[in-house]
Amino acid sequence: MQRYFTAQDVEIDDLIVMSQEDTHHMKNVMRMATDDTIEIVDNKSQLFVAKIETIDERVRVRVIEARVDKSELPVETTLFVPLLKGDKLDWLLQKATELGAVHIKLYEADRAVVKLDQKKKEKKLQRFEKIVKEAAEQSKRLKVPSLKFVGNAKSLTIDDYDRFFIAYERLSGDASKQLNRMLTDDLKRIACIFGPEGGFSNAEVESLHDANAVRLGPRILRAETAPLYFLSALSIKYE
Amino acid sequence: MQRYFTAQDVEIDDLIVMSQEDTHHMKNVMRMATDDTIEIVDNKSQLFVAKIETIDERVRVRVIEARVDKSELPVETTLFVPLLKGDKLDWLLQKATELGAVHIKLYEADRAVVKLDQKKKEKKLQRFEKIVKEAAEQSKRLKVPSLKFVGNAKSLTIDDYDRFFIAYERLSGDASKQLNRMLTDDLKRIACIFGPEGGFSNAEVESLHDANAVRLGPRILRAETAPLYFLSALSIKYE
Repeated sequence: MQRYFTAQDVEIDDLIVMSQEDTHHMKNVMRMATDDTIEIVDNKSQLFVAKIETIDERVRVRVIEARVDKSELPVETTLFVPLLKGDKLDWLLQKATELGAVHIKLYEADRAVVKLDQKKKEKKLQRFEKIVKEAAEQSKRLKVPSLKFVGNAKSLTIDDYDRFFIAYERLSGDASKQLNRMLTDDLKRIACIFGPEGGFSNAEVESLHDANAVRLGPRILRAETAPLYFLSALSIKYE
Repeated sequence: MQRYFTAQDVEIDDLIVMSQEDTHHMKNVMRMATDDTIEIVDNKSQLFVAKIETIDERVRVRVIEARVDKSELPVETTLFVPLLKGDKLDWLLQKATELGAVHIKLYEADRAVVKLDQKKKEKKLQRFEKIVKEAAEQSKRLKVPSLKFVGNAKSLTIDDYDRFFIAYERLSGDASKQLNRMLTDDLKRIACIFGPEGGFSNAEVESLHDANAVRLGPRILRAETAPLYFLSALSIKYE
């Protein structure tokens, strides 16, 4: 069943007017008809089944049933990622959504090649929001990851999290086992910061010295691959 | 240090003539000079350090030192993947190499959209081989994954492996924990088969009924994402 997100509060028997975008998707992409059913996730991440009543300028659906679904990672996970070149960030956002990230914060890395002014940021953000919404629908999530541009790595507060990791490959020894060990059962809010293609600057590593440095396996992962390894590890560990 | 693969047997003090392609990379991309050092991995996955002696039509390097390196997954892992649309397979091959796959077998899925004739397969294979070689060098692997077109899923022999998984999302209950449980310490050779965008056909699922069905977490992963989750899980479990 196709899943759609709504910003509204939903209760059984409600009549929901679908957004213009979802109406387009239901009519023209999915070619749905009256009485077809869809899944709706409301603003509190509650899942419902709804049936199409009318198809017009906007599709209207009647909420018929509540559903229980456990598709969210049991740890609330935040990724701090830099702007990456080409379409790598698009791709990373899609995959990180599939794999369960809850918040994605875009920070300004010292060595990032891509730099955006305020206007471009706003335009990009709209594009990114579309990517994560579609990925959340397709992967059957209950949450659309939040997206935000934050400052540079040196201005981050890391104590909002039970554990804040820094994915840093220049670690000696048996470091990848440490990630496994550091993913303890008491953690509820986890964050990890990932470097750009050129890696972290010394100033960034200095300013993040209270973070838990982890190596993600013994191979060198590209900037866009490391977050996916991290999220997969959380799934294997906690789900 | 830049890493290159050679098809030769290497010993200390050998003088190695680099291939045309590597020569181009060393001269024109890396702009290397005489006395610069590189890493060389030989046909037995042994790692050496070598120093450039002469730069000419071909670069010649002198092997000066053997190195020990543990960048390979301790389980020999084979992925069976279908042809995917667009550039998704290119991307999957690059990421699966970063994450440690040793053999990648391309099978003809019943529901795969992409179909190739023999000539196109040979051309694709050359392209794919370039992708995995470059990814193996960049991620500092000791092995370049092998690539092969095999028949359809119904003709596969699954008993060449200690455990053969089928990534099949239509499993009820607590299935993702099962992957964790099924990754036991005695396994040396593991394989997993992944479906195309449209999923496995019933005939394929039937013919693979002796395989271990696993779900890769509670979210629906796209065809190109599932193998990366699987490889990351192996790394967390065994490395």
